[in-house]
Amino acid sequence: MNHRPGAFRWVVSLGVVALSLSLEMLFWLFSRRRSERITNKVLFFPSEVACVEHIFSPTLPHSHVCSLPHGVDTSFSRLLRYILSACYSLDLCLFSFSNMDLSRAVLLLHSRGVTIRVLTDKVYSAISGSQIGVLRKAGICVRCDASAVHMHHKFAVVDGRMLITGSLNWTLTAVQSNMENIIITEEPDLVQPFVKEFCRLWGLNDPAQYLSSKK
Amino acid sequence: MNHRPGAFRWVVSLGVVALSLSLEMLFWLFSRRRSERITNKVLFFPSEVACVEHIFSPTLPHSHVCSLPHGVDTSFSRLLRYILSACYSLDLCLFSFSNMDLSRAVLLLHSRGVTIRVLTDKVYSAISGSQIGVLRKAGICVRCDASAVHMHHKFAVVDGRMLITGSLNWTLTAVQSNMENIIITEEPDLVQPFVKEFCRLWGLNDPAQYLSSKK
Repeated sequence: MNHRPGAFRWVVSLGVVALSLSLEMLFWLFSRRRSERITNKVLFFPSEVACVEHIFSPTLPHSHVCSLPHGVDTSFSRLLRYILSACYSLDLCLFSFSNMDLSRAVLLLHSRGVTIRVLTDKVYSAISGSQIGVLRKAGICVRCDASAVHMHHKFAVVDGRMLITGSLNWTLTAVQSNMENIIITEEPDLVQPFVKEFCRLWGLNDPAQYLSSKK
Repeated sequence: MNHRPGAFRWVVSLGVVALSLSLEMLFWLFSRRRSERITNKVLFFPSEVACVEHIFSPTLPHSHVCSLPHGVDTSFSRLLRYILSACYSLDLCLFSFSNMDLSRAVLLLHSRGVTIRVLTDKVYSAISGSQIGVLRKAGICVRCDASAVHMHHKFAVVDGRMLITGSLNWTLTAVQSNMENIIITEEPDLVQPFVKEFCRLWGLNDPAQYLSSKK
């Protein structure tokens, strides 16, 4: 009978140790999973030229008529997938936008009900091949920066949580010819300043505000 | 005497619990400090125009003769500080480089013994105002991408651990006029691909290799 309180204390103490170690392990696993979950990717260009039809129509057979290579995972196909992962919103702040596949991706998201806002440089929105007019005609909200300087950004924010930014203008030359880079990140310290800057520039280029300040 | 083994077990058990909790707290503090230590910053441009002499000569009195505002922390002064933080190496992969203050920063690092490599676009290295010739004359190793396409990158890697990249070309217009962005990050998942890409492009544009392939 003398040993019972001692044994009880042992059991309690071991229980506390086990609980403490389990908590430690859970915390470690949680913090590891969290850092694994955050996307931090880099894409380099020029991208290999390959068919991207299966990204727009996943049910399309790989054998459909097209002279380009099929089933190739390229920097461009990855970029398209990151853009098409938008569920709620897509904010685009682009100096130049003439790439037709990227325009098709934006139009597809618009048809799915994703809220799209496009901010672009006024001069470059009017050049031959620009997709800005196509987006406008489809009913997508576009604002042009009309200041005397260049709106030289090339970034996108997907669902307010993923930033796509780099040196790459959304043109065919940039994707298929130039040496370029793009970062895709969900790091809040990097994403949030871009979300804030987009809102600032969007407000600054509100045509209503622009017209009222002219009166 | 019966209570002694029980008391001893209590002391041991409490010791183990205390040790376990301390380890957990240490681990938590360590992982928190680590994530705080990793730089993830964003700079937007145009930058306010302000005197940057104190960055190059920290002993300089603020009252020195100069018509620009003094003691102002701007996007550009922060960019200069990140570049000047290089202790061992600075790898530059730049489409256009004509900004004289950025050139001065690179020359200062060179005089401090920092290993500098500059990779640039051949066409843009020859335009009026380019600083590439100045760097070459100072003995800095420069290689030009001579392909028919544009080497459109605008990134720097400081000491192989910090990436500076974005839309900003190293020109006066980009810094003082355009709307631009720069990311400064130490995230290994973002930095390492750029380190690797720089090495690939550096090797690809080795003049020795280029000449031997022409023979």
